[in-house]
Amino acid sequence: MKDNFCVILAGGAGSRFWPYSSTSEPKQFLDFLGTGRSLLQMTYDRVCKVVDKENVYISTNKKYKDLVLEQLPALAESQILFEPAVRNTAPCIAYAMYKIKAINENARIWVTPSDNLVVKEAEYIDTINRGFQFVSENDCLLTVGIKPNRAETAYGYIQIGETEVDQNLFKAKTFTEKPNADLAQIFLDSGEFYWNTSMFLWTAQAISEAFEQYMPELAHKFSDGKDFYNTSEEQAFIDKIYQSCTNNSIDYQILEKAQNVYVITADFGWTDLGTWNSLYTLSDACKDGDNNMLVSGKTLMYESKNNIVALPEGKLAVIQGMENFVITENKNVLLICRREEENRIRQFVNDTKVQVGKEYL
Amino acid sequence: MKDNFCVILAGGAGSRFWPYSSTSEPKQFLDFLGTGRSLLQMTYDRVCKVVDKENVYISTNKKYKDLVLEQLPALAESQILFEPAVRNTAPCIAYAMYKIKAINENARIWVTPSDNLVVKEAEYIDTINRGFQFVSENDCLLTVGIKPNRAETAYGYIQIGETEVDQNLFKAKTFTEKPNADLAQIFLDSGEFYWNTSMFLWTAQAISEAFEQYMPELAHKFSDGKDFYNTSEEQAFIDKIYQSCTNNSIDYQILEKAQNVYVITADFGWTDLGTWNSLYTLSDACKDGDNNMLVSGKTLMYESKNNIVALPEGKLAVIQGMENFVITENKNVLLICRREEENRIRQFVNDTKVQVGKEYL
Repeated sequence: MKDNFCVILAGGAGSRFWPYSSTSEPKQFLDFLGTGRSLLQMTYDRVCKVVDKENVYISTNKKYKDLVLEQLPALAESQILFEPAVRNTAPCIAYAMYKIKAINENARIWVTPSDNLVVKEAEYIDTINRGFQFVSENDCLLTVGIKPNRAETAYGYIQIGETEVDQNLFKAKTFTEKPNADLAQIFLDSGEFYWNTSMFLWTAQAISEAFEQYMPELAHKFSDGKDFYNTSEEQAFIDKIYQSCTNNSIDYQILEKAQNVYVITADFGWTDLGTWNSLYTLSDACKDGDNNMLVSGKTLMYESKNNIVALPEGKLAVIQGMENFVITENKNVLLICRREEENRIRQFVNDTKVQVGKEYL
Repeated sequence: MKDNFCVILAGGAGSRFWPYSSTSEPKQFLDFLGTGRSLLQMTYDRVCKVVDKENVYISTNKKYKDLVLEQLPALAESQILFEPAVRNTAPCIAYAMYKIKAINENARIWVTPSDNLVVKEAEYIDTINRGFQFVSENDCLLTVGIKPNRAETAYGYIQIGETEVDQNLFKAKTFTEKPNADLAQIFLDSGEFYWNTSMFLWTAQAISEAFEQYMPELAHKFSDGKDFYNTSEEQAFIDKIYQSCTNNSIDYQILEKAQNVYVITADFGWTDLGTWNSLYTLSDACKDGDNNMLVSGKTLMYESKNNIVALPEGKLAVIQGMENFVITENKNVLLICRREEENRIRQFVNDTKVQVGKEYL
C-alpha cells in the first residue's frame, strides 16, 4: 500500500461547459450533480479509499492553487503540482512521475482525471487494486477500459487483443479518438472496443523507461531536476523548464507507440462528464416532468422540455417555449445553444475571446 | 404660459418588461433606446418646451423618489407628488389637480404618461399648445388622439364624432380598450377611430367639476386637504387618505361618462412603448442583419433571427439557434419567452411572486 501513489489531473480549463465552467473555475471544481462535493472532491474521496492520503497528488494549473487548497484542505501544499503553463498530459505526468520517483523508487503510480463520475465504487476499488497488483508483477503500462453500453461518439476507444492474459486483462491493440456514429456502432457491436477512461497505472520504473524511449527530450528535461524535487527549489526548476515543453498527450506520444500497453476492462458505472449531453443522459434525478434538467439555480418553465439549465446560485430563469436547449450563465456571460450544437461551444469561446474580449472567458 | 401646468405620470411598475424593467426600476426610468436619456427624461425634456419648468410636476410612487431626483435634478422636491400606494390614475390626477389649483385657480393642466415616444416634436408642441388654447376657451375635457397607421391591438381607441368643431378637434364618441385584431382592422378602415395617448388637457376648474360630479367621494377626500397642499403637512395628509382611495382609472370613471369630452387629433410620430413588440416595431436602428434587436448588453449570435435581447450593462449573451424570442435579464432573473407570448409576462411575474418569492420581482 505504501508504494501505491495517485496523481489526479485537475488542470483542465473546462471550456465545453463555458460559461458555467470557466477558466477561473473549471468544471472539476464545480458541484455539477448537486451532491455538495465538486467533481474533484468526489474523485479525491474515491481515490483515498485505494491509496494512502499522503500518497495522493493533484496536478493542476498554478492559477487554481487557491481553489485546490480550499476544496481539499487535508492536502499538504507539497502534494500539489503546479503547472506553470498549459501543455497537455505528457509534461504533467512526467513531472509527477519524476517527483514521486524521487520519493520512492518502487512507486506504483495511478493517474486519473478529476472530472469523471463513478457509480459502482466497490467495483472501482477492486479494479484499481487489481491494476496495482498487475503492474507490480508485469513490466507494462496499464489502461482502464470500460465496457461500452451505447455507441458514444464523444469518447475515445481502446481495442483489446484476443487473448485474456489474466482475468479481464488484455493487451491493448489500437486507440481511436471520438469515432463517428457509424464507427462507434461497429465498435459497440464488435465487443472488442472499450471506452478509454484516461486512467493509467504503471510503476515509476516502467513509465520512466517509456518516457526515455518515446519522449527522450522531455525525459531529460525532467530527470535533470532530480536534486530539486521535494525541495524548496522544485517550483523554480519547474517554472524554468515547463514553458519549453511541447504540448503533447501521453496517449498519442506513448500509449499508441509502446508495445507493453495493457487494458484492464471493467464496468464500474463510469461516465466522463465531458459534455452537457453526457450529464443530461446520466442525471435522471435532476429532471422535471418535462425532462428539463436543472443543474443549479431556479426555474419556472412553460411549454418547455428537454432543456438543460445551469445558473448561478440564487438566479431564477423564467423560460417559455424552449425545447432541447442548453441555457447556462455565469458571471458576465449567458449562453443559449441548441443541445445538438453543444460541440460548437469551444468555437463560441474562441469567438468571444477574439471578437468580444478576454474578460468574458 | 404661466397658467399652463403639466403632470407627468411616472408611477407605473412596468411589469410587461419584467425583469428588464422591475418594480425597483420601472421602464420609465430606463434608457430603452440607447439615447442616453430615460423615457422619463425624454418626456420631461419635451414637456419643458411647452410648459415652464417650474410648472412641471411628476407624480410617482414614493419608492421612486430617489430615482426621480437623480434623473431630473432640476426639479424641486415640491414638484414631485409621492403616491403612497398604487391606486391607478384617478387618485393621482385628483391629487395633482387639487395641489395645482391651490397654487393657481386658473391653471390649465396637461396630464401625460412618462413612457411614450414622440418622433415629430414640432407637431407635438403645436398640438399641445392648441389643446391648451382650446380648453381655456371651452369648458371641456380634452384627450389627444393619434391617427392609427396599423390595426394595433395593444392600444386603446377613441371614436370621434362626425362634426369637426375646430381644426382637428372633435367630440369624443366612444372609448375602446385593446380591441381584437378583427375589430382593430374595422377601426382602422373606418377612419373614425384614433389611438388613445392617455394625454389629457383641461382647466383645473373643468376637471374639478368632473371629479365632483362623477367621483364625489374622491373629490371630497382631496378637496378636504386644500389647507395642506404646498405646505409641510401635504405629505402627511396624502399618506392618511391615499390608502382609502379605490383603484380607479380616469378613463373609465370620468372620460367615458362625461358629456364634454373632446379629442384633438394629431400625428406626431407617437408610440406607446408598452410592449417588447412595440419597441421592436419601432427601432430599426438597433437591429442587426438578421433583425435581432439588441436593447442593451452585448451579443454573439449564431443562426438566430428576429430576437429581442436586453441585458444588464456589460453582460454578454452567446445565442445559437433562437428565432422570435425575447431574451432579457436583470439582477437575479433571466426571462426567455417567445415574442408572440409576451402578453403572458404579467402572468410570469405573478407566478414568480407566488411560487418563487417577492425578492425576484
